[in-house]
Amino acid sequence: MNVSIGFDLGGTNMKAGIVHPEKGVLKQVSIPTQADDGLEATLDRMAKLIKEVSDDAEGDITGVGIGAPGMISLDRRSVHNPPNLKGWYVVPLAEEIRKHTGFNALVENDANLMALGSARYGSGKPYQHFIMITLGTGVGGGIIFNNKIFRGATGAAAELGHISIDYDGAVCNSTVPGAIEAYLGQRFMSQRAADEIRKHPESELYKTYAGNFEALDPRHLSEAANRGNTLAIDILADAGRKLGYAIVNYVHTLDIRKIVISGGVAQAGDHILKPCFQAAMERLMPPFRSDFEIIPELLGNEAALLGAGTLALENL
Amino acid sequence: MNVSIGFDLGGTNMKAGIVHPEKGVLKQVSIPTQADDGLEATLDRMAKLIKEVSDDAEGDITGVGIGAPGMISLDRRSVHNPPNLKGWYVVPLAEEIRKHTGFNALVENDANLMALGSARYGSGKPYQHFIMITLGTGVGGGIIFNNKIFRGATGAAAELGHISIDYDGAVCNSTVPGAIEAYLGQRFMSQRAADEIRKHPESELYKTYAGNFEALDPRHLSEAANRGNTLAIDILADAGRKLGYAIVNYVHTLDIRKIVISGGVAQAGDHILKPCFQAAMERLMPPFRSDFEIIPELLGNEAALLGAGTLALENL
Repeated sequence: MNVSIGFDLGGTNMKAGIVHPEKGVLKQVSIPTQADDGLEATLDRMAKLIKEVSDDAEGDITGVGIGAPGMISLDRRSVHNPPNLKGWYVVPLAEEIRKHTGFNALVENDANLMALGSARYGSGKPYQHFIMITLGTGVGGGIIFNNKIFRGATGAAAELGHISIDYDGAVCNSTVPGAIEAYLGQRFMSQRAADEIRKHPESELYKTYAGNFEALDPRHLSEAANRGNTLAIDILADAGRKLGYAIVNYVHTLDIRKIVISGGVAQAGDHILKPCFQAAMERLMPPFRSDFEIIPELLGNEAALLGAGTLALENL
Repeated sequence: MNVSIGFDLGGTNMKAGIVHPEKGVLKQVSIPTQADDGLEATLDRMAKLIKEVSDDAEGDITGVGIGAPGMISLDRRSVHNPPNLKGWYVVPLAEEIRKHTGFNALVENDANLMALGSARYGSGKPYQHFIMITLGTGVGGGIIFNNKIFRGATGAAAELGHISIDYDGAVCNSTVPGAIEAYLGQRFMSQRAADEIRKHPESELYKTYAGNFEALDPRHLSEAANRGNTLAIDILADAGRKLGYAIVNYVHTLDIRKIVISGGVAQAGDHILKPCFQAAMERLMPPFRSDFEIIPELLGNEAALLGAGTLALENL
């Protein structure tokens, strides 16, 4: 049976894996991206990693599917202004990889590939249509419609972190005031939590983190919430409700009622997802409430690699 | 050449027309719906109207396309809980029309059919993908993707009036606080305008409408704005900007960059649409700004009839 190479190109690390259509990731290797060395050096490192995973692969390799941050061209061959990759403006990445490795390649946005990975191997598998929300440093999204990535007019659809829930709201790493990323992105959520905790110097969280609020991440909040800390429970519930308001906007636009949630912040689990579900159910128009469901994705980052491999398996 | 019957079923009036694929509406008739008489009486009136337009039609009639308010089933045969139609719960409208008239029929949401009419006969014609926003008593929407209505998982996509731009905002005829319908729907907009005008007893608008604010509709505001009335200009510009914020949400979700605006409030023209365009351009992420355009639809209500006819021409 044919296999493919899935490639996950991040600003910090790059990862390559052999992806089997039924068995998933057979082998994977990861090295630092070292994006500061510039484009040519990064391409060389990518080629080296691809060679390394492909050398002893069983089965024929159909090609390389690459997940990259930023905007991807409609033909899935070029990357436009990826954040965190120095010196990359418009890079014909598929062609560069073919030149460097001999393999045909395709590129897709990393959040879209998380969704595709979930659709073929994860929580999204039972659903023909679902919305994937990735909660990490930022908030990303992917839309699966009729079992395929919904890409919009130019390939840039599902910028779900940049949907505003408050036109007069906080501005974060976005052009959009009140974008949901300003409430749920990891950095911004930690900062909001710190602000809240500072108001409660009597709290356990204040005692633990005073003077070291940078160390506070959603996982700590989640652990505190698990111990019954009401301040942590309130902070996570507030974030969850705001995510629910954004989800209402997605659902009323798309009429897609299965929401798959992935990423670091999602590890706060029910402390976020229960208030999120409740808030969405309260605000959805009645017909949209039936079959509405929020489902955590448990594959973690492997979803991106699986999605990248799937891109190559299904299109090369 | 085959023709079809387009049917526009509203809460107040019903309209039927012969629709030609190239020449558009050849003939149309309209009568009051008299929804209070109940379902059977309304079906009889519909059948009578269909008979009347079809009697002397030139060309073979492929069937009847019906635009109705409310949710339509995925198979386009049933209407679910249409607002303003008394005693209609779940009505197998396509089958009822076939029984009453002998014609095959299909039903679709009226705002979706406005979009389809625009796509085949109106401002949407040059575009493979666009978002239609109908500004009337409420705010409706339709999404054209790959030249077809995007219907979502169950046929209920594009409830674009029920997208929130302020999670803590005003509640109107919606389950969603801060829904754009609360700012742009005709009734709500008139009410907001009245509130604003009451604060300015020195204004020309106050002198004209004091004691009779119910008579104030967006057209009056537009006329006053045309005469240079700064209060009217401000009220319309504020509404336009808010519509722009909602449009940013649609565009970031769908990556569809052509926005076609139709309906009564749209007659306020540039007083709404210019601030709307500017606000959207300021908040869109840079890649989405290229090719972004807002285009008025000039067909008026005929777009719905043309869309209904097109539904029958292309699917029956």
